[in-house]
Order: sequence, then C-alpha cells, then structure tokens
Amino acid sequence: SVGKDFILSKWVRDVWGFAREDTNRAIFALKVGLAMLLVSLLILVRAPFKVFGTNIIWSILTVGIMFEYTVGATFNRGFNRAVGSLLAGIFAIMVIEIAVHSGHVAEPYVIGLSIFLVGAITSFMKLWPSLVPYEYGFRVTLFTYCLIIVSGYRMGNPMRTAMERLYSIAIGGLVAILVNVLICPMWAGEQLHKELVNSFNSVADSLEECVQKYLRDDGSDHPEFSKTVIDEFPDEPAYKKCRETLNEAARLDSLASSAKWEPPHGRFWHFSYPWSEYIKVAAVLRHCAYEMIALHGCLHSEIQAPYNLRITFQSEILDATSQAAELLRSLGNDISNMRCSLHPSLLKRLHSSTGCLQRSIDLHSYLLTSTHNFYDRPAKPTDKLSNTLTLEDFSGLFTKVSSDGEPNPNPAVPTQAESYHETMRKQQRRLYSWPSREVDDFEDGGVDTDMIPRMRALESTAALSLATFTSLLIEFVARLDHLVDAVDALAKMAKFKRESAS
Amino acid sequence: SVGKDFILSKWVRDVWGFAREDTNRAIFALKVGLAMLLVSLLILVRAPFKVFGTNIIWSILTVGIMFEYTVGATFNRGFNRAVGSLLAGIFAIMVIEIAVHSGHVAEPYVIGLSIFLVGAITSFMKLWPSLVPYEYGFRVTLFTYCLIIVSGYRMGNPMRTAMERLYSIAIGGLVAILVNVLICPMWAGEQLHKELVNSFNSVADSLEECVQKYLRDDGSDHPEFSKTVIDEFPDEPAYKKCRETLNEAARLDSLASSAKWEPPHGRFWHFSYPWSEYIKVAAVLRHCAYEMIALHGCLHSEIQAPYNLRITFQSEILDATSQAAELLRSLGNDISNMRCSLHPSLLKRLHSSTGCLQRSIDLHSYLLTSTHNFYDRPAKPTDKLSNTLTLEDFSGLFTKVSSDGEPNPNPAVPTQAESYHETMRKQQRRLYSWPSREVDDFEDGGVDTDMIPRMRALESTAALSLATFTSLLIEFVARLDHLVDAVDALAKMAKFKRESAS
Repeated sequence: SVGKDFILSKWVRDVWGFAREDTNRAIFALKVGLAMLLVSLLILVRAPFKVFGTNIIWSILTVGIMFEYTVGATFNRGFNRAVGSLLAGIFAIMVIEIAVHSGHVAEPYVIGLSIFLVGAITSFMKLWPSLVPYEYGFRVTLFTYCLIIVSGYRMGNPMRTAMERLYSIAIGGLVAILVNVLICPMWAGEQLHKELVNSFNSVADSLEECVQKYLRDDGSDHPEFSKTVIDEFPDEPAYKKCRETLNEAARLDSLASSAKWEPPHGRFWHFSYPWSEYIKVAAVLRHCAYEMIALHGCLHSEIQAPYNLRITFQSEILDATSQAAELLRSLGNDISNMRCSLHPSLLKRLHSSTGCLQRSIDLHSYLLTSTHNFYDRPAKPTDKLSNTLTLEDFSGLFTKVSSDGEPNPNPAVPTQAESYHETMRKQQRRLYSWPSREVDDFEDGGVDTDMIPRMRALESTAALSLATFTSLLIEFVARLDHLVDAVDALAKMAKFKRESAS
Repeated sequence: SVGKDFILSKWVRDVWGFAREDTNRAIFALKVGLAMLLVSLLILVRAPFKVFGTNIIWSILTVGIMFEYTVGATFNRGFNRAVGSLLAGIFAIMVIEIAVHSGHVAEPYVIGLSIFLVGAITSFMKLWPSLVPYEYGFRVTLFTYCLIIVSGYRMGNPMRTAMERLYSIAIGGLVAILVNVLICPMWAGEQLHKELVNSFNSVADSLEECVQKYLRDDGSDHPEFSKTVIDEFPDEPAYKKCRETLNEAARLDSLASSAKWEPPHGRFWHFSYPWSEYIKVAAVLRHCAYEMIALHGCLHSEIQAPYNLRITFQSEILDATSQAAELLRSLGNDISNMRCSLHPSLLKRLHSSTGCLQRSIDLHSYLLTSTHNFYDRPAKPTDKLSNTLTLEDFSGLFTKVSSDGEPNPNPAVPTQAESYHETMRKQQRRLYSWPSREVDDFEDGGVDTDMIPRMRALESTAALSLATFTSLLIEFVARLDHLVDAVDALAKMAKFKRESAS
C-alpha cells in the first residue's frame, strides 16, 4: 500500500509537472470541456432543443472533431468541414432530384451508384499531392453525403434533414471557434515564431557544445559507436535539440499553413503576414544545421587528430565559434523582438576571426601533413601565435627532414613523442575499420625504412581530420551569410522595426 | 474552346498518369466506394433497416472515418474507435446511474459537470507524449460520450441508444476491415519494406552522383548559392531523393506502428515480425546519409580544391565510391529479397580501396598544403600511381623549396601555372565571404617576399578542401560497417534466408 501510494504520488507529480511546464496545455483542456458543455446545453436546456430538434446532436460531433489546439488549425478544420458539408449537401440535393425523377424502381440503384462514385472520386482526389492538406474535407464530404442521401431516402424529406443538419454543424462550428478564439487563444503563428527563434538558439548552443567537446576531448573515454548511433548522446543536450530542429520541417510547415488561416493578431498586426518567409528562413537555418551535424560527425569520427594538435588552434577555433554563436543568437533575438538591427559589426568580427583561423591553419598546414616537427615544440597556443613563421623556418625544418629522413629526428624529446604515441594507441581502440597496420607494430622493434611512409600515412590522416573539422566550421560560417540574407528578407516583408544599433 | 479542350485533355492525362503511376491509388478509391455502398445497403434495403433502426447511420460515419489507406492504419483507427466508443459507453452508463439517483433537480447539473470533466480530461490526456498516437481514440471517447449521455437525457432509454449505437459502429467497423483486408490489401509492412530498400538505393545513387559531379566540376559554371539553397538542385535528382529520405523518419515511424497492427501476411509470415528493427536500420542509414549531405555540402562549398588536384585522386575516389555504392545496393537488395548473404568479400574490397585512397592522400599530402611542386607534374592519375614516392623524393622536394624559397620555382612551366591561377580566379567569384586579399593582387606586379605566406594560405585552403572531401568519404565508408551490423541484426531477427554467396 505504501508502494502504491508512492507510485500514485509520483504519477500526480508527473502530471502536475507536465501541466506546469506549459500552462497552455491545461487551458486547452479546460477550453475543450467548456465548448463541449456549451454545445450540450443546447440539448440539456429545453428551449433551444424545441427549436432545433434532434439533429442538434450533430453540433456535438462537430465540436468534438473541429476543436484543435491552435486557432489556425481550428479555422482550417472548420473550413474543411463547412465546405465539405456544403458540397455534400449540394450533391445530395442534385442526386435526389435525379433519383426522384428516374422512377420508383430505378431510385435505389441511382442512389447506390452515386454513393459508390462519390466514395471513389473523393478518395482518389485526396491522394492528389496538392489536395492532401484537404484530406479531412474530402472525408467529411463523403460521409455527410451518404448520411444525407440515405436518411433522406429512408426517412423522407431530405431537404429538411439536410438543412437542419447544416444548421447544427454551423452552430457547433461557431461554438468551437468562439471558445477557441475568445478564451486564451493559442495562435499557430505565435508558436511558429517562437519555434523558429528556439531553432536559432539550439543551433548556436549545439555549435558551442560541439566545439568545446572537440577541444576538451583527449580521446580517453569514448562510448562505443553502437551505443551512440541511434541519436542518443546523453551528454550532448544541445546536439539533441539541434537534431530535433532538423526533423521539425514537417511540423513547421503545418504550423505555417495553420498560421495563414489566422486573422491579424497581437504583434502580427498586418494583413498577409509573411508566414511562408518563416519557412524559408527555417530552410536556410537547416542548411546551416546540416553543416553542424557534419561537425558533430567529425567530433565522433573514428579517426581523430591528436589532442595536442587540436589544442594548438584552440584560441582561433574558439574565437570563430563564439562569434558565430553570437551572430546566430543575435539573429534569433532580432526575430524574437521583431526588430531589424543591422549586423555589420558582428559579421565583420566573425569574418575576421574566421579569416584568422583560416590563415593560421594555412600557415601551420605543415603540422597537418607531417608530424615530425610537431613534437619539437610544446603544444601551447600562445607559443605558436608569437611564433610567426618565416621562410627561414620552413627551410630549416625541411632540410632537417631531408638530412636524416626519419619522422622523429630529435632524440632529445622522447617523452613528448611517447605521449603522442600513447594518444594514438588510445585512439586506435575506436577506429580504422579497414585493415591497416597499427602504430604499435612499428613502435617496438627496429623501424623498417620502407615502412615509414605507411606509418606516416596513419598519423597524417589523423591530423588531416583537424583540417576537416576547421573546413566544416569555415563552411558553416560561410553559410551564415545566407542566413543573414534570409532573415533580412523576412524582416523586410514582415516590416520589423528598423534599428541602427547592432 | 480549343484551348479549353487542350487544358481538359491535359488534365485528364495528368490524372490518368497519376493513377497509372501507382495502381494502388485507384484500387484504394474503388475500395472506399465499395465499402460505402455496402454499408449504405443496410439502410437502402428494407430488411436490415427494420432490424437495426435509424441508429444504423452510425455505421456510415464509422466507415467514413475509419477507412485508411493501409490495413494496419485501418486496424489502428478501428481499435481507437472501438476502445473509445466502449469507454464512452461505460462512462455514460455509470454517470447516468449516478445522475438518475441524484434526483430530478440535480440531474442536469451532474450531466453538465460530467461533460465538462470528460472533455477536459480526455483533451489533457491526449497531449501526453506517450498517448499522442491515440489522439483519435480520445476524440472518439469524448464525442461518443456526449452523444450518448445527451440523447439519453433528452430522448429517453439511454441504454438502448448506447447499445444500438455500439452495434452500428461495430457493423461499420467490420465492413471497413473486411473490404480493406479481403480486396487487394495494402500492407503498411510491405510499404515500409519497400521504402527502406528505396532509401538504400537513393543513398547509393546520391553518393555516386555527388562524387561524379565533384570530379567533373571544373568550377566554371556554378549557379548562385541563393538559387540553390532552398533544397533545389535540379540537376541532382538522386540528392533530392536522398534528402527526402532524411525527412521521412516520421513517415517510417508511422508505417512501422501501423505495420505492428497487421496480422502475419505474405512474406512476413511469422508472428511478431521485427518491424521496429526496420526503424533502427533506417536510423543507421540516416546516420550515413548525414555524412552524404556533408559530402554534398563540400561539393557546393564556396572554397574548392582546384580541378587538377581533384582529378589527381580520381581513380582512388571513384574506386572507393563505386565499392561503397555497390555495398549499399547489395544490402538493399538483401533486404528486398529477404535473404541474408554474407558480405565479407564486398566489405574487404571496400576497405582495401578506401585504405588505398587514404594512403594515396597521405603519401601525396604535400600536394594539399604546398602548391609549389604541383605544377611540375602533369595531372595524370596514372602518372602519379606509377610514381611511388620514396624518401629520396621527399628530401629532394624539400631541399628545392628550402633553397630558393618561392612557391613556383620552376619558370619553365608558366602555362600550367597560369591555368591554375585562372581556375583560382574563377573560383574567387564564389567565395571568401570574409575580407581577404585576392590572388589577383599578387599576380601582377612584383611578388613581395613577406606576402608569400598569405598567398600560399589561400591556395592551400582551397587544396585542403579536397582533404575534407576525402575525409568525409572515408568516414562515410566507416559508417557503412555499422550499417552492415544493423542489417545483420535485422536479418537475424526477421529470420531472413541465409545464403553463403556474397
């Protein structure tokens, strides 16, 4: 009994938390209850029941089917139901006229055939791609048509039946719309607006998270791939959100198509507010997010640049990342506040720090392809930056290699070389699925001369993965330009307030 | 009138083409017509109408609402409708008992309150994440409850109303299910099976298309980014399909959850067929497809390796690509034929050709970071392959650089260097969004010694993009291992036929 109580109280707490998390949920539930009660009163109270008759129960069905979470979706369903019912009514009256004139014997056959045809035609039409959004309307047309024509045939006076039923449907629809719009309306447009802003933030968060993890990660503790493949990275909440952003295209589309049904309201005060522009911005943002996913793939790639090398470019990478994240957040913020600040200074800073990263990679690209001179210097980024590379330097390094022709020519730094190989060995654990000899094979025993190119190969592939990571980061930044353009276009069409502050 | 005829005939041709493209569409439409006709006959024919009474119209509504495209979805809807109606009936009878016992005055208040509560509770429950799939069931519960209790209150004899209505709903459900299952059934499982196989093929196609385009593309004719950003690459049909594959996660999920409702049928003859395993394979395939998207991003990246350099690794890249595509197709084929061939030889060949690409990149990695010796050799891949690089070679190259310290030390090959810069200039058009000096600045006029590192920087960034492309390709191949594992797991659980042929 104590256990039962415990489970019950946990359950109550869960439900309470769920309602608290988004109070609109509870409000929605109460609104449905209210709408149902109001429409039921039409029957429970004697006066309206006498006026409308038994057909009023159709208004209950209408409220039950039409009431949706957002105002736009309710309007959309209402439209489908109204047009569907109307079409069904018109068809039914036409067919009944024909059936009546075709004589007593032919009548049931005409009616039967018409039901078959209407069923087949509406069902075929709702499969047509551009008509798919009106699927519900076709469904309504079909069953309303059948109901009217069949009950007209069996119970007589089809016109009256049809009209009464349309009245009740209209009453039900009216109740649903009034309750939905007048009491705490939930606008699809508002939701779309918020979700777009959230997407910007989640891409920014995910970028920072991914880069920080890349620079922190020394390859020592990696979960097995099989555990992480099914989109579960428990220690990367931002990535999960970003991934969800990618899968939300369909949801945003449906929100936008609902939003188009909504009258101007609140902040979205002008007619024909450009909701479709939101979808375009979301598409460009997704385009950036795909690059983000590729970066994340590189983070979890099976071939990794050694930690020391990654750390070398730390400051440039971090700088570019934080600038990019800031730009993303500022764009999201602009949309959120519906103002249109110009971002020249942000963009300029981002470009300059990305350019800096690019130049730094290029200047030190010898680190990426040849590992020999890497151990000679401590992996302090500050040291590297102060060390502007001259051609003297280059020639010095190259002649050193050419003179003794071995990867690690300096015998004075065995510990650092050791730690590098240590790292490599660790990384061997998760990697190289194709057959290739491991570094360990060469470590012990004499180094065979003709084996050296191979060994270099493995090490240098690993180092090239840093180039991949930075290339992807740079490409991500390049795509942000287009995101800025898309947001500007949105700002223009939605008439955001123009501010000169960046 | 001729124009009208033309439009009409075009329209007819379109519709005919749409129906021909997938004959199941027309079959589905005819099935709906038939089901509607059958259920209408219950009223049109006198005998059953006398037995069931006017409540039989509920069976029409049930067929209209329940009939779905696939068998599984129809079962699922039927289950929702049945359980929803049943729960509503039970609630209604309980509440009516209470209301009757609470006296004549309190009765309408009890009923009104119960309607409000049922409305609020069902609406709240259907927002709960794990209950979302049963959204329709909650809707049915709500309006059936209201209908029963309200018409019971107003029209008397609630028990009889409720029972008659449940009968008619059961009859409607039965008709819908029988027609759906007995006449050309469309199985959700079959569809899921086919779509998964198609995804394999579209990823394979897309991979080949992307790589071929990358190797063919000489940077001369690129559409502006703004035109292509909204997922429109008209000349890349396979990429579009691959992209659609990524967005189909939700669709596959819903197919799988429908498939679980289906009885064993056709090739899927054993009970509890592992449909959820299909979802897992699809997730791993998506994981590969994300890498494919990154490759495609690299193809349309704003910084590109020069054509000559790309062509240098052509044979290795093409080899690895075709092996990977073959493996993908063979996996898809295995699933399609429900046999379980072992792929050791395919995997081995793929690994060896990927290893070959990797080694080739590593051995020639000096091409990626230093452009000086690139022009010296013609860009024939065969030449490169025959030219096994020795350390002598290395030292020779390095000393050459160190001795004169200029990027292009050989004045005998100006035309090739020219064409390279030509390419670079072309590529300058679409690139470097961040401020950086262009190659042209250095081309004319005397080359300033301290400017050289910068110039090298730009050229070498472009070359590094080839490293990015191949890294992504290699990572793609690495992920295929896990895809093979996932398919093997599926084959085991679904008891595919085991064949030893590869």
